[in-house]
Amino acid sequence: MFYFIIDILGTIAFAISGVLVAMEKKMDIFGVLIIAFATAVGGGTLRDIMIGSTPVFWMRDYTYISIIIGTVAFAVLFANHLHNFPKTLLFFDAIGLGLFTMVGVEKGLAYDLLPVMCIALGTVTACFGGVIRDILCNKIPTIFSREIYATACILGGVSYFVLIQLPIEEAYAYSIAILMVIVGRLLAIRFGIALPNIYRKER
Amino acid sequence: MFYFIIDILGTIAFAISGVLVAMEKKMDIFGVLIIAFATAVGGGTLRDIMIGSTPVFWMRDYTYISIIIGTVAFAVLFANHLHNFPKTLLFFDAIGLGLFTMVGVEKGLAYDLLPVMCIALGTVTACFGGVIRDILCNKIPTIFSREIYATACILGGVSYFVLIQLPIEEAYAYSIAILMVIVGRLLAIRFGIALPNIYRKER
Amino acid sequence: MFYFIIDILGTIAFAISGVLVAMEKKMDIFGVLIIAFATAVGGGTLRDIMIGSTPVFWMRDYTYISIIIGTVAFAVLFANHLHNFPKTLLFFDAIGLGLFTMVGVEKGLAYDLLPVMCIALGTVTACFGGVIRDILCNKIPTIFSREIYATACILGGVSYFVLIQLPIEEAYAYSIAILMVIVGRLLAIRFGIALPNIYRKER
Repeated sequence: MFYFIIDILGTIAFAISGVLVAMEKKMDIFGVLIIAFATAVGGGTLRDIMIGSTPVFWMRDYTYISIIIGTVAFAVLFANHLHNFPKTLLFFDAIGLGLFTMVGVEKGLAYDLLPVMCIALGTVTACFGGVIRDILCNKIPTIFSREIYATACILGGVSYFVLIQLPIEEAYAYSIAILMVIVGRLLAIRFGIALPNIYRKER
Repeated sequence: MFYFIIDILGTIAFAISGVLVAMEKKMDIFGVLIIAFATAVGGGTLRDIMIGSTPVFWMRDYTYISIIIGTVAFAVLFANHLHNFPKTLLFFDAIGLGLFTMVGVEKGLAYDLLPVMCIALGTVTACFGGVIRDILCNKIPTIFSREIYATACILGGVSYFVLIQLPIEEAYAYSIAILMVIVGRLLAIRFGIALPNIYRKER
Repeated sequence: MFYFIIDILGTIAFAISGVLVAMEKKMDIFGVLIIAFATAVGGGTLRDIMIGSTPVFWMRDYTYISIIIGTVAFAVLFANHLHNFPKTLLFFDAIGLGLFTMVGVEKGLAYDLLPVMCIALGTVTACFGGVIRDILCNKIPTIFSREIYATACILGGVSYFVLIQLPIEEAYAYSIAILMVIVGRLLAIRFGIALPNIYRKER
């Protein structure tokens, strides 16, 4: 139940981020819905086809499709009241990033994958929806923003595997890891934190 | 047999659309073949990997690969006689769109998916080949054209599920749905029909 | 063992090509790692999901991930000593192209696919990692360079199926096919060999 709620919240956060980008690009109603859908399920779809969990998760029942349609309807109405699109987008994107990282890690564990693969799977789940959203909307993918992005997912995933070694409940480790991704990403945006570039030094 | 013919016709239509785009981009012979191939099988490949129908359909025998090579040979010879590339492209793209929408819906039904998922699968089958074609050829994807595109697939799919409730033969419902997608798309192009944009209103 | 070594060498060659492109784009440390990873495993991942070999190859143990991390560490240190980035990139890309073509063909044979499908699978394995690398780095994909690229993979694959008809050892046929792809690609770059374009003739 706990994991299911996390999954739903992540779906809502990414669907909203999809609506925001699609509306900025002045897409029509169906365009907004398709972008929201691709953003919300894109990462999980790639995760599922890479581990062979088919039909992919959102095809099995109406849960995800209903939630996305509901979220889009709500977001479209609500978005006209927003005063600051870019900040709101970055906020929902960060929330989705944190939630989906751990949804992916959890799925990797359910498939008995090694810890490093679980972290890779979490990163794919979290990052790929946003990549699809940005490619479809002809934007430079947020993943290549100067501030740390995928790195936040990797750090969150690593924290989880460290935390579950400690004598704390698994749900706490899980929740802390989610918060670390979100807070890490938001702090990186706020303070413009980036990893050092690697480039050729003149000699 | 009926469904198989629809599938082959869709493959031919999309292969031709791939040849036309690749030739406009002045690709070499193999480039044209690869683009035609990706356009014709791209949507169905994504459909198959999402539902777990592997090896994907075109790998099982030489049917599709022979048809695509034959179509490319024919289209390359014939294309030099065309006087109006862009219109021909839109025409074959619309035909492929209609045929592949219902091929995808049919495959979803064969996998016992829910109606809404079948429609989503039909839309993916129909739209994704063209998206790959356009991305590989560095064109803005037709799916983002101002006129309705994916919407035509969704409407066709919905019509099918409404029609099969009526006391008519399934093959008729199937054929009518195909025609609805094609005619819907062509009318949208002809009269510039688009869905309303959703954008922030100034208040 | 022979096939495994070929696979590892291909992984190293493509990881280096990923590092070189990512460094030219001045990405940060994790960005370089992710691009190297995507380049090295992208083609094989698409191959595996199309034939239904899941979880995909690099998820099963730490072999590939360790090799890629090691290669990236080495390449980042070594790259600062390189005097000619573009040539080095083309060289490693050609090596990866040859090795991965035959890795893909071999995997197709292991799945009892028809020869033409094995060649298609080899071409996908070899070309797709580079396509992902170039799309993620916002470069025009090398596959669309004027000189032959995918064509070299197809010719190498065809050669292999011709050679195994002759009374020579399979490992020789395999190695000759790899060399044909690499030498074919490098000669095409060196002498600017391209296939004829197909375009509309003025009449």
